[in-house]
Amino acid sequence: MPVRFAEVAAEAYRYPLLIRHLLHGPLAFAPNQEIVYRDRMRYTYATFARRINRLARALSRLGIDSGDTVAVMDWDSHRYLECYFAIPMMGAVLQTVNVRLSAEQILYTINHAGARLLLVHRDFLPLYETLRDRLTSIDTMVLLDDRPGAESRPTSFAGEYEALLAGAEEPFEFTDFDENALATTFYTTGTTGNPKAVSFSHRQLVLHTLAVLGAFASAADRQSFRANDVYMPLTPMFHVHAWGLPYVATALGVKQVYPGRYEPNAILELRQRERVTYSHCVPTILQMLLEAPAAVGSDLRGWKFTIGGSALPAGLAQRAMDRGLDVFAAYGMSETCPVLTVSRVAPGEDPSSATHLRSLRKAGIPIPLVELRVVDGSMRDVPQDGRTCGEIVARAPWLTMAYGGDSEASTRLWHGGFLHTQDVGLIAPDGSLDVQDRLKDVIKSGGEWICSLQLEDLISRHPGVAVAAVVAIPDETWGERPLALVVPRPEWRIRLTESHIKDHLQRLAQEGVIARYAMPARIEIVDELERTSVGKLDKKRIRERFHHA
Amino acid sequence: MPVRFAEVAAEAYRYPLLIRHLLHGPLAFAPNQEIVYRDRMRYTYATFARRINRLARALSRLGIDSGDTVAVMDWDSHRYLECYFAIPMMGAVLQTVNVRLSAEQILYTINHAGARLLLVHRDFLPLYETLRDRLTSIDTMVLLDDRPGAESRPTSFAGEYEALLAGAEEPFEFTDFDENALATTFYTTGTTGNPKAVSFSHRQLVLHTLAVLGAFASAADRQSFRANDVYMPLTPMFHVHAWGLPYVATALGVKQVYPGRYEPNAILELRQRERVTYSHCVPTILQMLLEAPAAVGSDLRGWKFTIGGSALPAGLAQRAMDRGLDVFAAYGMSETCPVLTVSRVAPGEDPSSATHLRSLRKAGIPIPLVELRVVDGSMRDVPQDGRTCGEIVARAPWLTMAYGGDSEASTRLWHGGFLHTQDVGLIAPDGSLDVQDRLKDVIKSGGEWICSLQLEDLISRHPGVAVAAVVAIPDETWGERPLALVVPRPEWRIRLTESHIKDHLQRLAQEGVIARYAMPARIEIVDELERTSVGKLDKKRIRERFHHA
Repeated sequence: MPVRFAEVAAEAYRYPLLIRHLLHGPLAFAPNQEIVYRDRMRYTYATFARRINRLARALSRLGIDSGDTVAVMDWDSHRYLECYFAIPMMGAVLQTVNVRLSAEQILYTINHAGARLLLVHRDFLPLYETLRDRLTSIDTMVLLDDRPGAESRPTSFAGEYEALLAGAEEPFEFTDFDENALATTFYTTGTTGNPKAVSFSHRQLVLHTLAVLGAFASAADRQSFRANDVYMPLTPMFHVHAWGLPYVATALGVKQVYPGRYEPNAILELRQRERVTYSHCVPTILQMLLEAPAAVGSDLRGWKFTIGGSALPAGLAQRAMDRGLDVFAAYGMSETCPVLTVSRVAPGEDPSSATHLRSLRKAGIPIPLVELRVVDGSMRDVPQDGRTCGEIVARAPWLTMAYGGDSEASTRLWHGGFLHTQDVGLIAPDGSLDVQDRLKDVIKSGGEWICSLQLEDLISRHPGVAVAAVVAIPDETWGERPLALVVPRPEWRIRLTESHIKDHLQRLAQEGVIARYAMPARIEIVDELERTSVGKLDKKRIRERFHHA
Repeated sequence: MPVRFAEVAAEAYRYPLLIRHLLHGPLAFAPNQEIVYRDRMRYTYATFARRINRLARALSRLGIDSGDTVAVMDWDSHRYLECYFAIPMMGAVLQTVNVRLSAEQILYTINHAGARLLLVHRDFLPLYETLRDRLTSIDTMVLLDDRPGAESRPTSFAGEYEALLAGAEEPFEFTDFDENALATTFYTTGTTGNPKAVSFSHRQLVLHTLAVLGAFASAADRQSFRANDVYMPLTPMFHVHAWGLPYVATALGVKQVYPGRYEPNAILELRQRERVTYSHCVPTILQMLLEAPAAVGSDLRGWKFTIGGSALPAGLAQRAMDRGLDVFAAYGMSETCPVLTVSRVAPGEDPSSATHLRSLRKAGIPIPLVELRVVDGSMRDVPQDGRTCGEIVARAPWLTMAYGGDSEASTRLWHGGFLHTQDVGLIAPDGSLDVQDRLKDVIKSGGEWICSLQLEDLISRHPGVAVAAVVAIPDETWGERPLALVVPRPEWRIRLTESHIKDHLQRLAQEGVIARYAMPARIEIVDELERTSVGKLDKKRIRERFHHA
């Protein structure tokens, strides 16, 4: 029998999940709350709403209509926040250009997105000049300038942002449209090929906002983002909408502080002056902040940080906690809007305990509506024993539905009806997720998956080990087997042997910490290991060196 | 130009907002969390999930299919929670029968809903017997029994709930369907005519759950509902899904405690034994709890209460706070799923201050996605000056789209594209909503609205006044004018005159607290005022007595 539907009164409002609707609350109860951009701009939510209207009017006057794409190249600013709202609210699509890509990649993404209008910060004008003749769809440029009027703008530009807003009238008549309309798009880079386009609809961004709000606000006590916080993003706004948190902050009606280009000392000063209590960043930024001169002797207590993008190292987490920071991990990626999980410490857990440190570093628990599975190569769930690895696959209402213009990669992404993260993880008996590896680095041995990171971590517990790398080597019987490469600590350089490591791992196998099939087929003591330009182990080059050794 | 839509990979999962999806989180991270029913039942979320599957199998075996309506008559129980999930998850519609209505009204609602199957608690068997021959759509009955097997069941019944579950197999294959499918229906009673049917879809209930979770979890510190709370409803589960909070509690994965029939002493004992920290109720229940013998000398500290249904009196709020309870108001009604707003105290506000007391008693601020307006008779917004009254109208993604089978009332409900609450309120300059009156009690004087409750409250501030009632009297010039009826305190019985009240109000008008047009046309000192059976002022009878006086 079919399901039934409600009767609908003729004038009943069929409420579409549009970004515009996130503003009702904050404009009602926080019209005087502040939005701050460095030391350049400070205004209220009420002004913010007026500026959104003016921006839409200005863009409209420049020919932008629903369905058009507008590209932005800016540091984290109030302008970017205005674009987060005004552009999708017009029915247009916001492209957040990743300014850290190479010039050729940036060119590719803007052309591939078919953006018609480009808002570009003065800092990126030299870059823009190298691209301008090859931009195939851009027909209008607007300058973003922190000192409007101070310097001249290129004559080809339609205007400067603040001047355009000042010349625009209010209100813009924002109308309702299909909640599945595209709102944002940006590009994610893989190891090979061109950047891939992901995109998100109004419905997806609104649902992501509600779910993240619920998950981040409902933590037992610390490790939270709530109505009394002061917010400052420290993941760039061009990167997965700064993890979607500017939308959450706006819905909460909290004070928001935008730091511009990331300069550790300036960020620390701004944090102190504006009394920022909640930020989010990748581990590298956290480390930069802790090591910045301005951090020495300054009081960092009560500053909460969601950490994502890559694993939060135990040492860094501990150093941050020692300084009074409240750090906790979350997990997701460009394709997932991004949040899938957030770490959760048990209420009443001793903050100085090892359990606590482990809990807050984990990917953690799914946020509302996320269906998470860890599966083997045949999409069967692996046991939740905290030991068996598998690929993390997910469903949620806010995952990109495809890679734009790449049906082959899209088919792989959604194989079997779940989004494939290409991350390898395990689920502990308590249900929490721990991310272990990238799928490409996993060793597939006789139907079992061996996580290289897990094995590296266990080998590193031997007192003689400075660094360990584990890669796959081909094996006729098992398909692949693990090869462990070990760099000894200076004081162990002469005496560390393969047997030390083997005995160490066998003890761990007896204790049940590691499966027998995960024991390396070969262990080699080496002087050093190949690293990438940012200092990570370069598994690709390591594999090449040892593949046939 | 039309908006654009995302490409969609062939196998990409188009995630419908179904109640089923609220379970992913808690089943992943809280499988061992407890659900408790009085001293009768205690099991884990993992068991809960299995029982949902068994219930669906059992109902299916009894002929229930998607599109069917299943009616429930029970006290607050684990069974009811299972029905909240299993019945909608099958694509069927859950009718929560209001067991407090008259027998004739109950009969009307079950027949009007066209329910096919009735789950009925043993306590309601005598009532059921008086209705059975006139139930036009029910063809199957199931007994709900707190002591299964203890007594025999009527032979016409298909079985007893626990026995049916025990005999059913797992799993039930829950499938996806349209998120706009009806999930629940129930009836709301007005002052005249038959009860009116409201109904809610899966999408509406999921969105209400996320928005309530975000709003209730994100409060600055106290006045919240979070992951470390223990939940016990004290608004009946037949009434607007116990304000939707069992869905929120389940999504949070918290311990849940169901109290059965409300008996103050038993509730207080259960609360203590199970360490309940969060409940919600109408003011009357709160008062009953505070006055119960078991409350004397028992430690109530740390018990949080959302109060709704009617205004939270200052005296009751103060008494509750004196006992260490953490009370805060919320606002909504049957037609709105129900939550529209929640009170919000400013961070750092002194809990013993009058401001604090006033803040937490207010309807407060809209929860995410709620668009709230206070309008005059022509749907124009009234000024947000904390003084000008208007009707509260709303949009949100979870409002009933009509009254079932009553197109005339539905048209009135949604006149102008906003849901009309028929409540009169005012918005303070800080954006918070204060509910003042029912629309039918407002005095419409020369285009201005005068709130009877506001005027009564101001008159009551005179030391000589015990009770005041304000009603409309017809006026040739103004349409209506206020008539104030005042019962003096015993010690003022002889000396209180009309002039005392007039002077008192004129002072308030000079201070700007009250508008000049709100001054009563007439003031009468009376010995007593008509009251309803539950002790409320009976405005209808008061109007009748004084209409032509």
